Amino acid sequence: MDSDDMGERIWTAALVVIGDEILSGRTQDRNVAQLATWLNVQGIRLAEVRVVADREEAIVEAVNTLRTRNDYLFTTGGIGPTHDDITVDAIAVALGVGVEHHPDAMATLEAYYATRGGLTEARARMARVPAGAGLIENRVSGAPGIHVANIFIMAGVPHITAGMLDMLTGTLEGGRPVVSRTIGCWVAESEVADLLRDAEKTHAGVSIGSYPFFREGRTGANFVVRSPDATLADTCIADLAAALTATGRTVVSEGI
Amino acid sequence: MDSDDMGERIWTAALVVIGDEILSGRTQDRNVAQLATWLNVQGIRLAEVRVVADREEAIVEAVNTLRTRNDYLFTTGGIGPTHDDITVDAIAVALGVGVEHHPDAMATLEAYYATRGGLTEARARMARVPAGAGLIENRVSGAPGIHVANIFIMAGVPHITAGMLDMLTGTLEGGRPVVSRTIGCWVAESEVADLLRDAEKTHAGVSIGSYPFFREGRTGANFVVRSPDATLADTCIADLAAALTATGRTVVSEGI
Repeated sequence: MDSDDMGERIWTAALVVIGDEILSGRTQDRNVAQLATWLNVQGIRLAEVRVVADREEAIVEAVNTLRTRNDYLFTTGGIGPTHDDITVDAIAVALGVGVEHHPDAMATLEAYYATRGGLTEARARMARVPAGAGLIENRVSGAPGIHVANIFIMAGVPHITAGMLDMLTGTLEGGRPVVSRTIGCWVAESEVADLLRDAEKTHAGVSIGSYPFFREGRTGANFVVRSPDATLADTCIADLAAALTATGRTVVSEGI
Repeated sequence: MDSDDMGERIWTAALVVIGDEILSGRTQDRNVAQLATWLNVQGIRLAEVRVVADREEAIVEAVNTLRTRNDYLFTTGGIGPTHDDITVDAIAVALGVGVEHHPDAMATLEAYYATRGGLTEARARMARVPAGAGLIENRVSGAPGIHVANIFIMAGVPHITAGMLDMLTGTLEGGRPVVSRTIGCWVAESEVADLLRDAEKTHAGVSIGSYPFFREGRTGANFVVRSPDATLADTCIADLAAALTATGRTVVSEGI
């Protein structure tokens, strides 16, 4: 649990991305950005992410550290039927509980594989859950996601995870969503660093990020104001735009 | 320090990605995959990644945990001239040292900004380093990367980081690079789970990853064999291909 400058309760989540394929560079992760965006809408902030290998002790350490200091913990990856899919076992170890075949998951998989060669032992692995867990429906393929304690165990394949997040939409308690307002300016951020710092200080309750880029041979930056208070964010971005304009610069609303 | 099944020394690195823009979903990270790929060539394994917010205590915790249990630690992000760029200060706190303006960095920035409006105080912030640090040349923009203890402090903008990695190529001690061999098969991975497990068991010193996908309305999977021993990887992938072929399936070399 955490609270912001205004004393308002902030709901936080963490994500553990599980998979050698991310750490080897073979696969470009898409789940961090996808989950972050979805959490924003739920009024929950993504506070920290860890990417760990397919090793039990690495998963246990990350899960136990992050589940206790956040309201929610998400994991992605490692819930398929093969030998490198050890997420369920590792989370059971982290929680100190056993592993069981969930009857609803067995029924779902039996139905799904009825026309696809039948439910083999390998496929039944995907019905295994930490004892006491519930399921998150998977409309794309047979294997469900899992919900246990404050942990949400999701697929590694991004479009399957997207479907699982869809099922969870509106079910998690959160606070006010953080809104963000962006403006862009063809300016080196170093020229307006003081102006940015002053704008953040003047408007308690906002944070301002500065994101420089090089494009078409020119230097520019986007400035992003974030706050759970939309009015405050609007005021701050208007003041910032006015301050930039007063120095003779052209401001691009919505960013460049 | 770590070693593998064959008793061979494994060199490891960790990465701390620093930035609210990644955790808010605004920016898709590219540095994890980029660094992972580069490290592979250096014979160094990326063992763990953490993504943390622009908050000193979050950076200090991640840096201190990961620098002590890996041969190398990389950070990306937060080394620009604005108020939200706090990486240098946080790493100085983590190391228990002060912050100083590096004379070579000052000279570089003075030259860079000579024709760009001069070296302001904000710009001189980019010459600040933890006491005792060296520099990593940045050929793209003025601000250098920083090397201190076993820590390499890099830019957040991926193509600037790419240039810094270029400067470091061949300078870090590593072991044998992990090679990977891939085959693909139009098969549900659950149908060949036992076969994969057996192949990994039979060939000590390899790890096999299974990466399913859904494409053109069909189910398939790529199987990736990784090992620092190229001969072993070749033998294992050949055996795996033969085992899959023996079940009547068509194997696609190099993957699907």
